[in-house]
This record gives sequence, C-alpha cells and structure tokens, in this order.
Amino acid sequence: MGGGNSFGQEFRVTTFGESHGAALGVIIDGVPPNVALTAADIQAELDRRRPGQSKVATPRNESDQVEILSGVFENRTTGTSLALLIRNNNQQSKDYHNIAEIFRPGHADWGFFAKYGIRDYRGGGRSSGRETAGRVAAGAVAKKILLEQYNINTVAYVTQVGGIQAETCDLSAIEQNIVRCADPHAAEKMVAEIIRVTQDHNSIGGCVECRIQNVPAGIGEPVFDKLDALLAQAALSIGGVKGVEFGDGFAVCGKLGSENNDQRTADGFLSNHAGGIAGGLSTGQEIVFRVAVKPTPSIARKQQTVNTNGQSVECEVIGRHDPCLCPRLAVVLENMAAIVILDLILRNKCLK
Amino acid sequence: MGGGNSFGQEFRVTTFGESHGAALGVIIDGVPPNVALTAADIQAELDRRRPGQSKVATPRNESDQVEILSGVFENRTTGTSLALLIRNNNQQSKDYHNIAEIFRPGHADWGFFAKYGIRDYRGGGRSSGRETAGRVAAGAVAKKILLEQYNINTVAYVTQVGGIQAETCDLSAIEQNIVRCADPHAAEKMVAEIIRVTQDHNSIGGCVECRIQNVPAGIGEPVFDKLDALLAQAALSIGGVKGVEFGDGFAVCGKLGSENNDQRTADGFLSNHAGGIAGGLSTGQEIVFRVAVKPTPSIARKQQTVNTNGQSVECEVIGRHDPCLCPRLAVVLENMAAIVILDLILRNKCLK
Amino acid sequence: MGGGNSFGQEFRVTTFGESHGAALGVIIDGVPPNVALTAADIQAELDRRRPGQSKVATPRNESDQVEILSGVFENRTTGTSLALLIRNNNQQSKDYHNIAEIFRPGHADWGFFAKYGIRDYRGGGRSSGRETAGRVAAGAVAKKILLEQYNINTVAYVTQVGGIQAETCDLSAIEQNIVRCADPHAAEKMVAEIIRVTQDHNSIGGCVECRIQNVPAGIGEPVFDKLDALLAQAALSIGGVKGVEFGDGFAVCGKLGSENNDQRTADGFLSNHAGGIAGGLSTGQEIVFRVAVKPTPSIARKQQTVNTNGQSVECEVIGRHDPCLCPRLAVVLENMAAIVILDLILRNKCLK
Amino acid sequence: MGGGNSFGQEFRVTTFGESHGAALGVIIDGVPPNVALTAADIQAELDRRRPGQSKVATPRNESDQVEILSGVFENRTTGTSLALLIRNNNQQSKDYHNIAEIFRPGHADWGFFAKYGIRDYRGGGRSSGRETAGRVAAGAVAKKILLEQYNINTVAYVTQVGGIQAETCDLSAIEQNIVRCADPHAAEKMVAEIIRVTQDHNSIGGCVECRIQNVPAGIGEPVFDKLDALLAQAALSIGGVKGVEFGDGFAVCGKLGSENNDQRTADGFLSNHAGGIAGGLSTGQEIVFRVAVKPTPSIARKQQTVNTNGQSVECEVIGRHDPCLCPRLAVVLENMAAIVILDLILRNKCLK
Repeated sequence: MGGGNSFGQEFRVTTFGESHGAALGVIIDGVPPNVALTAADIQAELDRRRPGQSKVATPRNESDQVEILSGVFENRTTGTSLALLIRNNNQQSKDYHNIAEIFRPGHADWGFFAKYGIRDYRGGGRSSGRETAGRVAAGAVAKKILLEQYNINTVAYVTQVGGIQAETCDLSAIEQNIVRCADPHAAEKMVAEIIRVTQDHNSIGGCVECRIQNVPAGIGEPVFDKLDALLAQAALSIGGVKGVEFGDGFAVCGKLGSENNDQRTADGFLSNHAGGIAGGLSTGQEIVFRVAVKPTPSIARKQQTVNTNGQSVECEVIGRHDPCLCPRLAVVLENMAAIVILDLILRNKCLK
Repeated sequence: MGGGNSFGQEFRVTTFGESHGAALGVIIDGVPPNVALTAADIQAELDRRRPGQSKVATPRNESDQVEILSGVFENRTTGTSLALLIRNNNQQSKDYHNIAEIFRPGHADWGFFAKYGIRDYRGGGRSSGRETAGRVAAGAVAKKILLEQYNINTVAYVTQVGGIQAETCDLSAIEQNIVRCADPHAAEKMVAEIIRVTQDHNSIGGCVECRIQNVPAGIGEPVFDKLDALLAQAALSIGGVKGVEFGDGFAVCGKLGSENNDQRTADGFLSNHAGGIAGGLSTGQEIVFRVAVKPTPSIARKQQTVNTNGQSVECEVIGRHDPCLCPRLAVVLENMAAIVILDLILRNKCLK
Repeated sequence: MGGGNSFGQEFRVTTFGESHGAALGVIIDGVPPNVALTAADIQAELDRRRPGQSKVATPRNESDQVEILSGVFENRTTGTSLALLIRNNNQQSKDYHNIAEIFRPGHADWGFFAKYGIRDYRGGGRSSGRETAGRVAAGAVAKKILLEQYNINTVAYVTQVGGIQAETCDLSAIEQNIVRCADPHAAEKMVAEIIRVTQDHNSIGGCVECRIQNVPAGIGEPVFDKLDALLAQAALSIGGVKGVEFGDGFAVCGKLGSENNDQRTADGFLSNHAGGIAGGLSTGQEIVFRVAVKPTPSIARKQQTVNTNGQSVECEVIGRHDPCLCPRLAVVLENMAAIVILDLILRNKCLK
Repeated sequence: MGGGNSFGQEFRVTTFGESHGAALGVIIDGVPPNVALTAADIQAELDRRRPGQSKVATPRNESDQVEILSGVFENRTTGTSLALLIRNNNQQSKDYHNIAEIFRPGHADWGFFAKYGIRDYRGGGRSSGRETAGRVAAGAVAKKILLEQYNINTVAYVTQVGGIQAETCDLSAIEQNIVRCADPHAAEKMVAEIIRVTQDHNSIGGCVECRIQNVPAGIGEPVFDKLDALLAQAALSIGGVKGVEFGDGFAVCGKLGSENNDQRTADGFLSNHAGGIAGGLSTGQEIVFRVAVKPTPSIARKQQTVNTNGQSVECEVIGRHDPCLCPRLAVVLENMAAIVILDLILRNKCLK
C-alpha cells in the first residue's frame, strides 16, 4: 500500500526521513497494548546502530536521540499508533553540492531521478542507510515484545569481510568487538582489513548471519507470506544487500535429497539443513539465514558516470561513509527480522 | 492481508487449491482493461509447467486445462476481476493414506499441522508444488501484457543440477531440452544425472537463473517494496527455494567497492555487477538473479521422522514426484517475476 | 489492494463474476481452520438470495448451486484459501443487445465505460446485483463461524417500501413473508405495492434495517477502521444503497446531548441511541443500522439518455429485474455485516 | 493493515497522536513528486480546523503549528514519505483526573478500555476529535494536488443545527460566519442556538453537507471500493458522525424509479438525484453527500454511568469542548473527502 514505506500486516511499520532532512522516524500501527516501554528501551537499540560509534564506522556524529510522540501512557503502550522521532543534527549538506547534477556509481541516485524526476541529493536523501534508523526504532519495540512475551531472541553478526571469514561462532563475543563478529580472532583481522581498505580510498563487502531462537512451529503464512519469503523481502529491502540464503542456502544446489532432508525422532530433529523453515513455516528449530552485503559504493576514487544531462563525467565521492556496511547492517538485519517474526506471530493469533 | 494467499498491490493475485482437491486457480484483481486474452494464451504457459511433460518430471498426468470464468468479454479483458479455473483430474489420493499420521522429512507437513491443527495430507495439500499452477496462470496474463505493452521479457533456466553447471548461456536453447538449461551440452549431462538419482531412489538440487529484459529505470518502491525485495519474496515463496541472489550475488562479500561499482558513460553502463538493480530500483540494465533449489524432499528411502503423536517412526515416501524441481520451477520463477514487474510498473503509473 | 474486488483484512473476501459470464464466486483467505463446513451450509444462504424466489423478485431462474473448490478437507476447513463457485445457467443475453450502445439511466453503464473503455453490457456485467452471490457465499461462512463460536447473529429486514413503513418488529416474522418485513401486516401492503408498481412498469425504493446481537465490547479498529466506518463501507458497496445510519441516525441532527447520550448503571445501559457503537467501537449493546435503497433503475418506460457516441437517444429497459431491491438486498446486507464483524473479531485477536 | 490508523491505498495516510500527548501528526506515503509544498500551505487548512477559533468552538487554545519533517526538498515533494508534525501545547490534563476511573456517557472510554485493557483518559486520548489534526494536515496536501492538477474542489458546510436548517446555499458565505453555514441568515440563528445550549450546560447535533466539483466520470473501484463506499467509510470514521447519505439519500426510500433515475441528453444530465455517483462510480456530475452529527457527548450535567469496577456512579464532564461539533467537523469532512478522491484518482491511473 502507498509508495513502499510500510512493512508488516498486523505490526505495521511506516518509516519516513532523509539523510539530511529535519528528522527520521516511524509510526508503528498495531503495537500490542500494555507493554512497558520507555524511550530508553528504544535508545539502547539505536545506540547500537548509530553512526560515529567506532573507527570502522562513518565519522558522522549523530546521537540519534529518540522521542516517543504517541501511543504510550504512563510508560505503557496503549494499543494506539506509536510514533517515534529522531532529529538529524550533524548534517554536512555542503559535502553533496558537487553531486547534485551527477549520478554516483552503485548508488540509487539514477534510479530515484528516473523514478520521481526529482532527487534530494544530500547524502542520498531517502536512499541513504540513515533511513534504517526508523526501522531499528521499530525493531527495538518488536524485540522487546518478542523477548518478554515469547522468549524469542534475534541476533545478527558478521561472518565475512572481504577475504576474511569467521571460523568460530560465540554469540557472546559479538558486542565485544567493533565489527560485530562472533569469532574474536577473525574480528581483529576484519578490523585491520577495513582500516586498510579505507586508507586505500576503497570499501569492502562482507556477509552477515542472523539467528532466531525459540520461534514456535507453524509461524508463516503460505503461500506468499511464508516466513522465509518475508524475511527475504525484509533482508533485500536493506540497502547494500544483494542476496539471502536460509540454512545451507546455495549449498543445496549440489545436494541429494538423502543428504538434505532433516530427519527427526521423538527426541528432536537430527539436523538443521533447512535453517528452521520448511514449506515456508517455522519448524521450531533455530532459524538461520545470511545475507551478502556489497562494498559501500561511496569511494573517494575517480570513477566514470553521467550527469543529469546524460553526459560522461568523472566523479569522486566525498562525504562520510562506512567503509564496510556489515557491522552496522547487522543491527538493522536483526531488527528487521524481529519485525517479521512479531508480525507473523500476531497474524497467527487469528487462528486460535 | 488475509492468510497469505495474495500477492501484488495493483496487479493482485489470489490463488487457491490443493494437490488432490477439486480444482486450483486464481483471481487476478487489477488486470488492465482492453487486453486481448483467450484461454489459449494462458494454456501455453500452463503447458510448460504441467506435470508429466517429460521423463525427468513427475509422472502424474494432468492436462491442466484452464477455463476463464470472468473478467473477459468478447476476448478482451474488461478491468473486472479475472478468475481462472484448473480442475484436478489425475489424483491418486490413496498413495497418501500411509502418511496421514506422519510428518514427511523436509516437507511442510509438520508446519501445517502445528499451524492449523488440521492437514490435508493428500499430496501435501496446499503445500504441494501443484499450488503453483494458479501462479503460472496469472503469470501468463502478466507476461502477455509485459511483452505487448512494454516489450519486457522474463525468462528463467537451469544453471546447475547437483555437481553439473552450465558453462554457456544461449537463451534460444532453453525450450529445446527437457531440463530447461541454456547450455545444450550441460543439459544432456543434467538429464542423465537426474535419471541416475531417480533410479537410486534419491533426488537432487540445483540452481535456476532468471533474466528480465527492457525494464525501464526507476521501477521499484523504496524502502520496503524495492524491486529486489519483492523479487526475493516472490522467489522464496516458491516451494523448494532456499536462497536468492542478484547480479554477482554472494560473490560481492569478497569484493572491493572499486571492483563492484558499475561505472557508466554517455554510451551506457560499463558492467552489470548489480544485476540491473541499484538502491532497490531498476537501472535500465538487464535484471539478473538466481535461486538455490533444494533436492525434492520426497524420496523412496527409509527415513526417520515422528507421527502425530510425537512417536519416532520410519517413513518411505511413495507417490509421484519430480526428482529435481528445477526444470518446472524455472517456469514458475519466470512467471512470478513477471507478476512482480507488472505490479510495480502499474504502481509506478501513479506518479506520472 | 488491487482493483477493489477484495474486502476485509483477516477474513479477506475476493469476489469475481459477471451477470452473464460463465460463473460467479469468491475466494476467502483467512478462514479459521477446523470449522465444520459443507456446500449445504452455504447453499442455505444462497437460496435466500437467489433470483426467482417469489413473485416480487426477478423471474430470472438461477438455482445458484455452490461448489467448494478448495480449503475444505473431510468437511472441515483447513485454514487454506476457500474457493466457492456458482455457475450461471439462466442467462438471456439477447435481452441486452439493444443496450450495447447506450447507457441506461441510473445504472453503472456510463461509469464503467468511462472508467475501463470497455463494458460487458449483458445484464450490467460486473455491476449487476448478481455480483452479490459471491458475497453471500462468503457471508454464509462468516455467519456460521459467528454463530457457532461467538453466538453472534446478524439479521436484516425491510422496514419501508415506498410510502409503507413497518410499525412492529418481530424478527421471527421475517422469513414468513416474501418481502422480508418484520411486521406481517405491513408486509402484506408492501407486497401489494410492489406488484402495483411492477404492473405500472415502474420500480420502488425502500429501507432495510440490520441488527447484530452479542458482539462483545471493543470490536472495531480506530481511527479509520471503526466498526461503523467499515459497516458503512460494506453497506454502500451494495448496489442501490444511497445512505446508511446507525442507531438514531439522522435524527441526532435535531437532538441535545442530554437527550442523546446513552447513560448506564451497574445494571446496564439505559438506552441505545448510539445503535451499539460509540467512538467506532462496539459497546456490547445490540448493533442497529439501516440503509436507504433506491428504486431499481431498470424500468420498462421510455427514458432519455445518450449512446456511446454521446447522442441523445430514448431507452426502454427490457430484461428481468427486481421491482424493489429490498427483499433480496436484506440478505446481502446481513451477510456483508457478518463479514465485517468476523473480520474485526479476528483482527481484535492480535491484541490478546 | 495494522490497527486501523491508515487510510487510502496509493495516497496512504497514517496518523498518530493523542489529545494530551506530546504531538499529533501524519505520514503520507504515495505523495506525487514535484508538487510545490510549504508548511504554510498546510497551516492554512489547520487554522480552519484549530480549536479556540471562535466563540462556538472549544476554548482550548492550540496554534497547531505544523512542521514538515521529510518528503520535501527545496519546497517540492520528492515522492518519498511526507511526515507532518503538530505539537500539543495547551493540554490541561488535570481536568481529566476525575474521569480516570469512569466511562463518560456517549464517549469511546468504555470501548477503548474493553478493547485494549488500558486507556489514556486525558481528553479521550486517541479517541479525541483532536486526532483529526493529522487528517486535515494530510487533506491539505490532497486538496492542493486536486485543485492544481485536476481543478477539483471539495467544500463542506453546516446545513442544520438542532431545529435550525439552512434554506439557501451560497458557498461563498461559508467562511464568512463562525458556524460555516452557506445560508447567512440561518448562520446567525445557529450561532445563537449554540450559545444558548452552551449556557444551558448542554450540546447540540447537526448536519454537514459536502460537495465536490469536477471529478471526472469513472472514479471509484467496484465492487468494494466504490466511490460512495469509501466516502462513507471516511465520513463514519470521523468521531460524532452517525449517518451518511448521497444525493437524495434517505428520501429515495419513498421514491419510484421514474422519479429517481437521472435522465440525460447530449446536453448533459437532467437531474442529480444520485449525488454524482451511480454504481459506485462518479458520473461527472457534482458529488453531493451529507452526514448526521450527534450532539457532543461531553456535557457539564450530572449523568449516570459506571466506573472501571462496574459500579454505578454519577459523572459531570468538565473540560473544554465544542458544544456543537459541526463547524469544525465540516473542515475535517472536506479534507477526508479530498483524501478519498485523490487516492481513487491515483488508483485509476493504473488503468491508463
């Protein structure tokens, strides 16, 4: 419905805001009533996503303070629409005047211009990753409800940066390093690699994995709103994501049925090749999926492109950017996952 | 909206039907008026999907004859809802009585039972791949409109079966072989491999790629209904698909920005790593994406599972199945892609 | 979503079919699972709506036999989409060739032509009251669930035909007379009046009232999907309805607050001026609303209109029509009301 | 979708805010790009709705200053989501502590408590008429687009207050008097009547009529999203509205077909009994409809009600209220009408 700025059916999120506009935010329509909620609950999640948080993140310094405008009374949700506001404070729009008339390679600049015939070029406008602040604010509410009411936890972490892959997975390590990797040793190498490419005026891609525990069996709505289908939409809606795979993912292309089926006894499943989803419905096992994240398109190198008149020009992208999207994208991914899961749990309630 | 059986916003498809029920079909709400349309137009696409079409497909023999029930007058669409009906004729439901009380490994049986508390076990009921007949019928309408009004073509083909990968890509070869591979030499090996695993009471996975030509720039609705996000939802909503990737896909994880950005001059783009989509909007280049397809879970081998009382039991799946889902899934994928593209083109019209 | 042929969010109804097409019907997405349901359950409601049922109804003789195509297994709903099919058998399309090029006064002919640029003129095509067969089939399912699971009953009856108004209200009398009036004496006069205007080649308007018992308090979704707002949409979506009012309705325009407020004690409400809805939410009292129904526009009298070339022409509408829409419209109204109530009850479940 | 706080499909409005919360506002998703727009454009419409505007309005003094948070760049819309913020400044929440535990007669207090189990009692919270500020802000955008791009004008005015009815209709007179009546003589009597009932600690009902000029033929989406069906939903979604009628409205109940049909010649329609809508589609004539508005339920008189424990109590409503809702509701109605019309015009574009 509308122009694509809403997501979810029962827990319905509608976001707004541009990179260099006055503010960003979200309305959530369908928040269950009587949930204890304060700005601090949401702020904690926004702090994990905010720019300027480390030496591998963009230096843009936004505190991303959230204000609850409606939907909460005496620190409890009321069931009415919940509006959350985050002011922009650290815009440096002058950085972008030089790209007002050109389309940066790898960016949405050209698509937005072709689509709308007008473009807020400052920091990419609505196409900026800054747009995800509203999603994380909404996700914070979803995560709190999932944890308190269903004991469901969503967590995402970086498994690859360029040529470096994590080899162990200790979820307690994730927030202990600035790349959000569950393998502390790989994390160190990843940090070094990101700093190296930054100094080389370049950027680097990577992979982020998400795990969700304790989702009961039967969540998802066949045939189009399957659990994996909506997680895939959610994942690909995040800027920079170029692929998603569940469980064994693309490795299934080379597998036999006898290798891939998850057999089961009265004691439980014997494997989880499916990543916790079969036939588009949760099986009750841990849900596992991962996304491919492209290198940040903004690089301070000369590149060929065209201007709004269609003429060939050279372009060098100045501004403040994350050299690797993965560490902060992990936070966005786990919050989007929380929105999907809560929405589908609420939809499932209609059957009971 | 509803229980997940609808897809699309302006060209809105709602499907129904079970594997062994009376009929399958679809209502399309939002069909542009004044489009020349006969049952034969739709039948051609259904014939490409229908079971029993070759020695690598399920032997279930359904002619899948379609009847137009409404929305067409004197062979032209009227703008009212278009209903399409396909009767089931070749059910062998007795094959399935032995699985009425057990959950087949790798299938949706368990999820459906956990979700609804009741299950049409005959051939998997609504979770059967047979459900996609309605999608293909709707896709046939979308494909016709796309081709006639926008010169847009969607095509999908098999690039991998187990360990065998296509090495060339000649789109004219696709319909010349029964696995729908664009590489005739690989096609022969794929056929042999599928027959081999079938004789071994096994099944095999693979990969299907989809290309879409001539989509104008700017199609897609940021931030949640991005073109790749909706294609991903569409892809993952097809039974057996475990992953999707656009353009270079998961290979971007190891790339630098300077390698991955698609530069451009007045003469056009210099590369298409992005698969024709940047920032969730079409760039005007060819759209390219591919899906990972798991091996068919139905195999005639003894496997461990549980029954509806939670007890451990052995299970051997009898019935008629495709040993490799890919050749027929390619048809479903290109039709789902057509639905996504047409829907987003219609949504985009509101801006003009 | 789509072109307007769907209604409801959780119990989502999508209808199709034209007056003289092959068939009419409906898909319901979101039917609760495990509901006992047979074609006979639905047929009973369709029989109340069907044409040719009495001397005050259109003589078109359709048996309106319904077939369940999907969504039911062993006589219970499965939670998957429920498709219902009703074949047209008694079309006399030749009656309508004379109106192929003209727009009948008071009909949707002109609007459909202006909108779609093409028109199925046979019996009004999709704009025919025959379209409501699909609604009633869906309503029958809703009514059954409401009655069995919530003890909720919806009933509608004729309170006025032309100058004749009902003066008593005995709900048990409704199905005892062919105009569906809850006042047996007024019913006799109404029948006579309808026969009189028919013989005079004319038609006549009237009023239909609907009552719904046992809706719990708090049903409705502020601020746009209020209970009365959705009932109003449902009512006005029925062809021929020109107004709707709740409780005291238009009489409130002349009232004081002290007269109109429904006061309450521990023993219950002291009045029901509001018709059981305050602030868009059910109060737990009986819901009461009524609709204004215009006289059937089809009359066998010479009238002025224009043809598709915009030229003035005379028009005399031949064909088979109800001289007063009210007796059959009452059935449609109570079924639409049931769809609204069930849908909102299901939506309300997400809060619990 | 969600909890009922959104309206429209292509021009999709989602509102938030409570009477005594921090702020109210709206996100509009689907605003056409490249529309000149400033806060002043929206402010003008909000000023017409704002409290404290005259001696017949509530004395609550809110300036209702609007801030555009997103979706506008260099004073033109960009096609991205448009967020509008209105801070509350003049809350007197202490007025409401005495009703924290009781349900005011005629209000939504009871319904909200029954529904959500929690209630922001300050000024009615989300059920307050103050909620409509967000609607009017969105409507201002819709009105501007309708006027500039389609020459469509929506206007509403008071035709009845208690026993006083307007006898003439001069649209230019509406904004010249504080009751927004198109008959200056009746306006004087209405003002006097409202002041009289206020002094008597009472309130009074009335009727508001809406007219829309220049809507092209064919707007509306059969069968459920008919133009009149959506206008009816919009009208009934406004607090205090108890009925809606189109054209001759309830008078059709007593009419014959020969009296009610709008005949037509090459020179145009000969009458407009239908109020510009036939078969749910605009005819190209002026659209005319009216709503019944109940007397404000808040009256400073002793009334019987119950508290949250279900015990009988007496209640006298203190606070600041409009003694007659009609003068300000007229502004809300014409803005809601503008939203409906623009949304349906945008939906209709998909057909072209």
